[in-house]
Amino acid sequence: MSLPKTMKAAVLFGEGDMRLVDDYPVPQPGPGEAIIKVEACAICGSDPKILAHGWPNHPPYGEFIFGHEYAGSIAALGQGVSEFQIGDRVAVEPHKGCGLCANCRDGLYNTCLNYGNIEKGHRHYGFSFNGGYAEYACNHINSIYKIPDDMPLDKSTLITTAATSLYGIRRIGGIQAGETVVVSGPGAIGLMGVVMARLLGAGTIILTGTRAERLETGLKLGADLGINVREENVVERVMALTNGVGADAVLECAGTTQAAVDAVEYTKKNGRVALVGIYKESAPLNVNKIVQWNITVAGSKAEGERSLPQALSLLSRRTIDIAPLVTHKFSLDQIHAAFETVEQRLEGAIKVVVKP
Amino acid sequence: MSLPKTMKAAVLFGEGDMRLVDDYPVPQPGPGEAIIKVEACAICGSDPKILAHGWPNHPPYGEFIFGHEYAGSIAALGQGVSEFQIGDRVAVEPHKGCGLCANCRDGLYNTCLNYGNIEKGHRHYGFSFNGGYAEYACNHINSIYKIPDDMPLDKSTLITTAATSLYGIRRIGGIQAGETVVVSGPGAIGLMGVVMARLLGAGTIILTGTRAERLETGLKLGADLGINVREENVVERVMALTNGVGADAVLECAGTTQAAVDAVEYTKKNGRVALVGIYKESAPLNVNKIVQWNITVAGSKAEGERSLPQALSLLSRRTIDIAPLVTHKFSLDQIHAAFETVEQRLEGAIKVVVKP
Amino acid sequence: MSLPKTMKAAVLFGEGDMRLVDDYPVPQPGPGEAIIKVEACAICGSDPKILAHGWPNHPPYGEFIFGHEYAGSIAALGQGVSEFQIGDRVAVEPHKGCGLCANCRDGLYNTCLNYGNIEKGHRHYGFSFNGGYAEYACNHINSIYKIPDDMPLDKSTLITTAATSLYGIRRIGGIQAGETVVVSGPGAIGLMGVVMARLLGAGTIILTGTRAERLETGLKLGADLGINVREENVVERVMALTNGVGADAVLECAGTTQAAVDAVEYTKKNGRVALVGIYKESAPLNVNKIVQWNITVAGSKAEGERSLPQALSLLSRRTIDIAPLVTHKFSLDQIHAAFETVEQRLEGAIKVVVKP
Amino acid sequence: MSLPKTMKAAVLFGEGDMRLVDDYPVPQPGPGEAIIKVEACAICGSDPKILAHGWPNHPPYGEFIFGHEYAGSIAALGQGVSEFQIGDRVAVEPHKGCGLCANCRDGLYNTCLNYGNIEKGHRHYGFSFNGGYAEYACNHINSIYKIPDDMPLDKSTLITTAATSLYGIRRIGGIQAGETVVVSGPGAIGLMGVVMARLLGAGTIILTGTRAERLETGLKLGADLGINVREENVVERVMALTNGVGADAVLECAGTTQAAVDAVEYTKKNGRVALVGIYKESAPLNVNKIVQWNITVAGSKAEGERSLPQALSLLSRRTIDIAPLVTHKFSLDQIHAAFETVEQRLEGAIKVVVKP
Repeated sequence: MSLPKTMKAAVLFGEGDMRLVDDYPVPQPGPGEAIIKVEACAICGSDPKILAHGWPNHPPYGEFIFGHEYAGSIAALGQGVSEFQIGDRVAVEPHKGCGLCANCRDGLYNTCLNYGNIEKGHRHYGFSFNGGYAEYACNHINSIYKIPDDMPLDKSTLITTAATSLYGIRRIGGIQAGETVVVSGPGAIGLMGVVMARLLGAGTIILTGTRAERLETGLKLGADLGINVREENVVERVMALTNGVGADAVLECAGTTQAAVDAVEYTKKNGRVALVGIYKESAPLNVNKIVQWNITVAGSKAEGERSLPQALSLLSRRTIDIAPLVTHKFSLDQIHAAFETVEQRLEGAIKVVVKP
Repeated sequence: MSLPKTMKAAVLFGEGDMRLVDDYPVPQPGPGEAIIKVEACAICGSDPKILAHGWPNHPPYGEFIFGHEYAGSIAALGQGVSEFQIGDRVAVEPHKGCGLCANCRDGLYNTCLNYGNIEKGHRHYGFSFNGGYAEYACNHINSIYKIPDDMPLDKSTLITTAATSLYGIRRIGGIQAGETVVVSGPGAIGLMGVVMARLLGAGTIILTGTRAERLETGLKLGADLGINVREENVVERVMALTNGVGADAVLECAGTTQAAVDAVEYTKKNGRVALVGIYKESAPLNVNKIVQWNITVAGSKAEGERSLPQALSLLSRRTIDIAPLVTHKFSLDQIHAAFETVEQRLEGAIKVVVKP
Repeated sequence: MSLPKTMKAAVLFGEGDMRLVDDYPVPQPGPGEAIIKVEACAICGSDPKILAHGWPNHPPYGEFIFGHEYAGSIAALGQGVSEFQIGDRVAVEPHKGCGLCANCRDGLYNTCLNYGNIEKGHRHYGFSFNGGYAEYACNHINSIYKIPDDMPLDKSTLITTAATSLYGIRRIGGIQAGETVVVSGPGAIGLMGVVMARLLGAGTIILTGTRAERLETGLKLGADLGINVREENVVERVMALTNGVGADAVLECAGTTQAAVDAVEYTKKNGRVALVGIYKESAPLNVNKIVQWNITVAGSKAEGERSLPQALSLLSRRTIDIAPLVTHKFSLDQIHAAFETVEQRLEGAIKVVVKP
Repeated sequence: MSLPKTMKAAVLFGEGDMRLVDDYPVPQPGPGEAIIKVEACAICGSDPKILAHGWPNHPPYGEFIFGHEYAGSIAALGQGVSEFQIGDRVAVEPHKGCGLCANCRDGLYNTCLNYGNIEKGHRHYGFSFNGGYAEYACNHINSIYKIPDDMPLDKSTLITTAATSLYGIRRIGGIQAGETVVVSGPGAIGLMGVVMARLLGAGTIILTGTRAERLETGLKLGADLGINVREENVVERVMALTNGVGADAVLECAGTTQAAVDAVEYTKKNGRVALVGIYKESAPLNVNKIVQWNITVAGSKAEGERSLPQALSLLSRRTIDIAPLVTHKFSLDQIHAAFETVEQRLEGAIKVVVKP
C-alpha cells in the first residue's frame, strides 16, 4: 500500500486560527512507528483550549495538527515494526514516553520527565506533536492498540476518554467491589467514569452535576442516582445517603474548585478522592479533615499505566451501551461546525466525532 | 501485687483548669485490660489544646485525666489477659478501635467509625478516655506494647511521636530506598520524621523550618540539609536541589497552610505528600498541579496500622541517638511548669516528659 | 420475639456420625452477638470432610453442629447490639477473629493467630464453633451481613463461596481490566470464580476442568472458553491461546497437585497464581520458572478481608444469573440425602442447600 | 577522548573455553549508548554456569564477552546522550528492556517479553549481549548509574548483587519495620540480603546456612543470629524463636529445593517468601500450608524495578561496611585464576573482582 504525498488536514496557524488545508505532506514513519489512516477523531474538552491558546511545546503554528482521540487503520509501517500489519484497525493513546527517564522506566510514561522533548523520543500526540485531525497520522507503536472487528471506529475514539476515567480510578487504588462511589461532574469523562466504575464492580454510584439531562444520561449508563448540585446541598445529601459515613471513593471530573472542596467534605474516613478535572485556580481544600479523616487525594494525569488497553477491553464487552455518548458526527470539512457544537454545547452534545 | 485505692493525678476540671489531686480512684481493669503504673508521660503538641479547650467526647470535667504518650510497667491484669505479666515494661498506643465497625475490621482502628463511643469499645486514651498524667492508667491490651529491657522509659514515651511520623510515611506508600524526602516543620513530629526516614533507607533528607537551632538538631538526627523558609524561597530551593524535578516524598508536619501549599509546589511528578500537621484552616492547594503532575496528597491520622510497634522496633536498635529530643523532665507535681515549658517553648524545649 | 427453648439440629456425634436431634438447646446471644433463625444452609466441599474426620478444635462430639454457609433472619439480639434489628434478613461469614492478635489488628481475621481459642473470642462457625445445620445459630455481629430484600435466601448462602473466590482474586492483587484469567477447576468455587472475575472486568476467562457439563455451566456464567484437561494439554493450549505469553492471573480451585503444577507452567512473566483449593499433598512446583518468570503464588485462606460483603454486593446486582449453581434443596430432615447428593455428585449437583 | 581500536578481553569460544585476546574490536556506541572503560567486574554465581554451558541467545562463540557486574568510567557517548559526561564514574545494570512490550511499558524491563531480541532493543549485558570482562563495554544509558565520588569502584560492582537481594525484598511488598526476616543461604546474595534488610528497618534477622564462617560474616553485616541447618532443624528453630508464629518474611537465596520447602514451613500466617535462588529442579512445596496460612511465594528475577539505583543509594551511605564481601581481586590476565577461586570457593571467597 502506497501512501499519497499530501493529505487534507485541519492545521493551527495561530491562536483561534484553524484552517483546512489540502496539501499537507503525509508523514513518513520512522523506526518503530506506523502511519494510521484516520477514520474518526473525537473532540476532547481540551481541544477548544488548544485551539484558543496553543499548548506548551506545540509544533510551530502553520504545521500544527491537533486532535488526540483517533482511530483508523494501519496504512504503513516503519522499520522494525512486527507488532502490526497493514490494515489493522486501531485506536491510539496520546502519550508516548521517552523511555529514558526515571518515570518512564517505572512505567509512568504519562508523566515523562522529558515532556515535549522530541529528540528524547517523547510524544504527546495532538499536543506537542501532530495528531489526528487529518487523513493520516504517524504514531509510535507504543501508542497504538488493535480494536476488535466488531467495535465501530466511532466508538473506538471514546477509549481515550474511558481511559482517563479509568486512570482516575487506578490512581486511588481501584474500586473495591461494593464501594459507594461519587462521580462528580457529568461531562464525557464523568459519564465514562460511571461506566468504568460500574464495569469494575462498584456498589452505589452517585452522579453529581448541574444539568438534569446529563444526570439522566448517567443513570442510563449505570449510575444509581443523580444529585443536582444546584438544587441540593451535595455534601449533606451524600452524607445522608451514606448514614453519615461518606463516600468510599470520589472521581472529581467537574474541574471546579467548589467541586474539589465538596469532594473532600463528603468523603469517608480513609476514603479516596481522584482529581481528574482541569482546574483554573487553587482550591481551598479542608486539609484538617484530610488529616483527621485519613483521606487520600490523588491527581490523575491523562490515561497512563495501561489504562487505555484496559478501557478498550472493558468497552469491547459491550455490556453497557455507550452509544448515547457519541451525539454528533461531522466530516473533516465541517470541523469548525464540530467545534462550535462542542464549545456551545449545542443539541446536548457530549462527544462529537470528526471523520477525515 | 495489690493496687492502692487512690492515686495522684492531674485532672481537668474545666477549660484551662488542670488540678493535681491526691485521691483519684485507681482504675480497675476490665476484661482484656491492664493497669499500668505510669513512670513517664510526654507532653504532646495537642495536650495544651486539650487543656485549653477540651476534646470531643472527653470524660466529664472533674474526672478527665489526659496525657497519651506514656510508659511504665504492668501493675494488674484484667480477666483473660495472658499476653502480659505483672512487671512487664510497656508503652502505649493512644487509639484502640471498637473492633466492630468496617474500618476496624479492615485494620484501620485509628479511624474507627465509633470514635468516642465507650460502649462500643472505642478508646482514645488521653482524649475521649482517661490517660497518663496519673500514677496509674487502664489500657486495653491492644494498646500496650512491651519495650526492651535496655530502652529507658523516658525515651519510650517518644514512640507515639515516632509512630505518628512513621504513619505519615506509610500513608504515602512508604519511602523507597534512595528517595529525596522533604520533612517540613522541625517540631517533634518532624524531627522524628527525619529519624524514621533515615532508618527506612531514604536518600537525601531535606528539613525545612523557621528556627535555625531546630534545623541543626535535625541534621544531627539524620537530615542532609536544612532550609530556613524565612531566609530562602523553599520551593525554588527544593526544585534547584533536585534539578528541577522536585521531591519524591514530603512529610508536611508544620501544620501551616503555607507549608501545605508549598509542599505541593516542590513535589515531583508522581510524588507523594503526607499531611501530618494539624491545620487551622483550609489550604489553597494547586489542584491543577496535583492533576497534571499526578501527585498524591494523603492525610495521616495519628499512629494507625501497626506504626507504633514498628516505630518501637526501629528506635530500639538505637542506631540514631534520640536523646536530643527529650529536653526536659518534670515530676507530676510540677506539671504546670512542664506545660509552661512546652507552651512557651522555654529553653529550646522539644519533648517534655512528666514523671508521675 | 421470644426464642424457643429447644430446636431441631443435625449434630455430629463422632466421625461419620451425624444425627438429627429435636431437643438441642437454642443458643443464647452473648454481648455483641445475635441469634439467627436459619432458613438455608449450603453444603460446602469441606463439610463432607468435617463429617468424616471432624476438624481441629471442633466442639465436643455430641454437641457439634456444623455448616457454615447459612442465611436467615435475626431472631434475637445480645447486649449492646444496635447494628441489627429483629427480622433483618442476613447471611453470615464463617470467620470471626479474636480482635487481639497482630493479624486481627491488621484486618486479617481469617488468619487469626488465636484460631480455635474460644476464650480469646475467635470463632470459626461450623468448624471450631457451632454453625448452621440447625434451626437457630448464634453469631457475633462481625460475622453477619444484611442482604437485600430482593435477594432470595437460598442464593444468599452462595456468598460464602463467592467470597472465597473473590478473596483468591484479592490475594493476587485483584484482576486488572482486560487481563487473561484462567480459572482451574469448575467446582462451585471455580464456577463462582468465573462469575467474580467477569464482574470485576476480566478480559478473556479460560475455565479448565475434567467434566464437559461443568465447563458448559462455566460458559453460561461468563467464561469465554473451556479446556478439558483430559482431552488437551492444558499448558500448551493456554500458551497457544496467549501467543506464548501465558495467563496474567490464575485461580487454582481444583485442589490437585497437577493443577497447581500446571498453573505455574502456563502463567505469564510477572503473572500471579492464587491457590484456592484444598491440597492433600505437596506439589512439585517449578520454582526455577517462578524465579525466572517473576511469578507470584499466593495461598488464599477462606474469605477474609471484606471479601464477603464485597461478593454480596456483586451478586446483588444480579447481572449474572447464579441460579444454575443451586442445583438441589433439601429439608433439614433430609440432610443425609443432601450429603449423599454432594458426596456422590448425584444429578450434576453443584451447590446443595439444606433448609432448616 | 578517543577510543583505541582494539582491546583486551576475555572471550568465550565454546563451552568451558574462555580465552584472553588482545585485539578485540572496541565497541562503538549507538544512539542512546555509552562506552564504559571497565575498571572492575565482579564474578557472579551465574558466571561459571555461563562459562560451562553458555546462555540462551548468547552472542556467537568467538565473540561473546560475558561478565555483568562492572563499574568504570564513561569513555565515549553515543548520539543524543546528554545524561552523562565523559569521565563520569558509573556502574551498570545487566538488564535493559526493549521498551516496546507490555512488561517494559509497565516498568518490568527485567522480564521483557522480547528477551534476547537484539533488534527490538533488548539487552542482557553479559548474557545475551556482550558484557564487562574486557577493557571497554557498550551500554545503553538506561543501564548506567553514576556512583558517588567516595565510593570505590571495586565495591561498586556489588550493587548488582545488592540490587538482586533488594528486588527480592520488593517482590514481597518490602519489609515492614520490625519484621522478623529469615535470610536463607549465606552466599553473596544472601549476605547482601542481610545488609539490605537491616538498612530497610527489619527487626530480627535470622541467617541460615551450612558454613559457620559465612554465618559469622552475616552477623557482622547485620544479622542477629545464625542457624546452621546441618546442626539444627531449621523449621523447628525458627518456629521456636518466633513463639510458634513463624517468620514474617523470608529471602530464600540458597537455591536448594530443601531450602525452598523449609521456607514455606517456617513462614507465618500471611507471611511472604521471596525465592531469589537458582533452582535445578522442582520443589515439593507444602501447598496446603500455603493456602491455609495465606502465604505468598514470589519469584524474584534479577534486579528489576529500580532496585539497582536504590541499592546504590543504600550502600553509598556506608552505615554498614561491605568490605568483608570483596575477598579477592585479580587482573583480567588472571581471570582463569579468578574463576577457579570462585568455583572452588578458595580461601573463603565471597565476591571476586576482576580488574581489566
